[in-house]
Amino acid sequence: MNFSVTDQYFSSRRTIRRYSDKVIPEALLYKMLELASHAPTTGNMQLYSVIISSSREIREALAPLHFNQPQILSAPVILTFCADFNRFSKWCEFNDAVPCYDNLQSFVASAIDTIALAQQFNTIAEAYGLGVCWIGTTTYTAPKIAEVLELPSLVVPLITLTVGYPAEEGSDVGRLPTNAFIHSERYQDYSPLQIKELYSEKEERSDSKQFVEENQKNTLAQVFTDIRYPRANNEHFSEVFRDFLRDAGFVK
Amino acid sequence: MNFSVTDQYFSSRRTIRRYSDKVIPEALLYKMLELASHAPTTGNMQLYSVIISSSREIREALAPLHFNQPQILSAPVILTFCADFNRFSKWCEFNDAVPCYDNLQSFVASAIDTIALAQQFNTIAEAYGLGVCWIGTTTYTAPKIAEVLELPSLVVPLITLTVGYPAEEGSDVGRLPTNAFIHSERYQDYSPLQIKELYSEKEERSDSKQFVEENQKNTLAQVFTDIRYPRANNEHFSEVFRDFLRDAGFVK
Repeated sequence: MNFSVTDQYFSSRRTIRRYSDKVIPEALLYKMLELASHAPTTGNMQLYSVIISSSREIREALAPLHFNQPQILSAPVILTFCADFNRFSKWCEFNDAVPCYDNLQSFVASAIDTIALAQQFNTIAEAYGLGVCWIGTTTYTAPKIAEVLELPSLVVPLITLTVGYPAEEGSDVGRLPTNAFIHSERYQDYSPLQIKELYSEKEERSDSKQFVEENQKNTLAQVFTDIRYPRANNEHFSEVFRDFLRDAGFVK
Repeated sequence: MNFSVTDQYFSSRRTIRRYSDKVIPEALLYKMLELASHAPTTGNMQLYSVIISSSREIREALAPLHFNQPQILSAPVILTFCADFNRFSKWCEFNDAVPCYDNLQSFVASAIDTIALAQQFNTIAEAYGLGVCWIGTTTYTAPKIAEVLELPSLVVPLITLTVGYPAEEGSDVGRLPTNAFIHSERYQDYSPLQIKELYSEKEERSDSKQFVEENQKNTLAQVFTDIRYPRANNEHFSEVFRDFLRDAGFVK
């Protein structure tokens, strides 16, 4: 890679959900993951694993677990990024040390390592001309994904990336102004007026208005609370994930 | 920024703990965070906040909460990246929608957003010639950090980055070979022989051997289990964090 990066490069990146048939060479995939593995990691422990799924069989097993989002089958490769304290614990066991990572803090440390790796991989893949989509359903069906991928204890799937050469440009979905999320010295909580100002551009977008209309809601926020991320789902999948953290050995 | 990126750039990145006196212009800090905010985010909700600490007062309050790691005081700026469902929930409330994000899955989604933002900021800051160190003690003392930074409910500090112009080159701490963490199609669990091979380079490094000797241990793994991340600490800080997730309103 010899790639010229500008501010524009970072601000114009897009999620890509449609891919061409072009195959990603396995050596390139390994190289990009190797480069990404130099991202920061807790105590240099590298508390993650990445499962590469390219076979039709595995992807057909995974697709319903991601609610049949089409890119699970149409992408040449999907990667499941997992928090992993199994490998490190085995290393301890085989070296006269007693591992002690069956607890919440260890899960959190491995989750941080894992997401940092996924983001760095994302950046590197895009620099190599690939398109990426983050699939956020991984933690909803973690126990079933773990079964398909044969994950042992202390391994928790957190995020899935579909990867391929782009067959679309992707669209600009916009972001909040920076003062929405940056606080100086202390957290400044939001007044109704501030919220109105910070979200006005988002609410005024034509895709937002279309979203509200299509779903027959009165406000954009209602599309999120009533349709996209409603209470019943959030609570159901929270129970599933909490039980899985227990079964995986991270919490009692 | 107009910056030429090569493979070498990603593989030679280093943690930087010592900084020059050079000030980071506030406008640059905001610009880098704006660029980073184009990283992937769950449903485009941007479930994070970043607290910039540059005042002496706040950093002196934070330093003991990071066990007095010197860069908390010596860096020109420290950034605390927080999972944040407060802002989004307020937006819902002010828009005739009933927020429903007081649960584990919502915490996980916001944590993923937050760490992806932190990693993308890290990459961009390095491209701008800055040095960064990730401070992993944030979740150990989250309730006290929340007090200093005046974080409301549904806001959880996850990782702290110290940032400044480098006054050292940083050292190469090495990484495991890629086949340590990449699995094809299914997770392949590790045999004692495989673990031995995958960790041999790490164990043979002179800094590792020095670590073992200084701590009067028999193996490198024992340095981790007995000194760096021992059971008593892991379990104590797990309780603290679990209680904080409850107090912050993310779990019952």
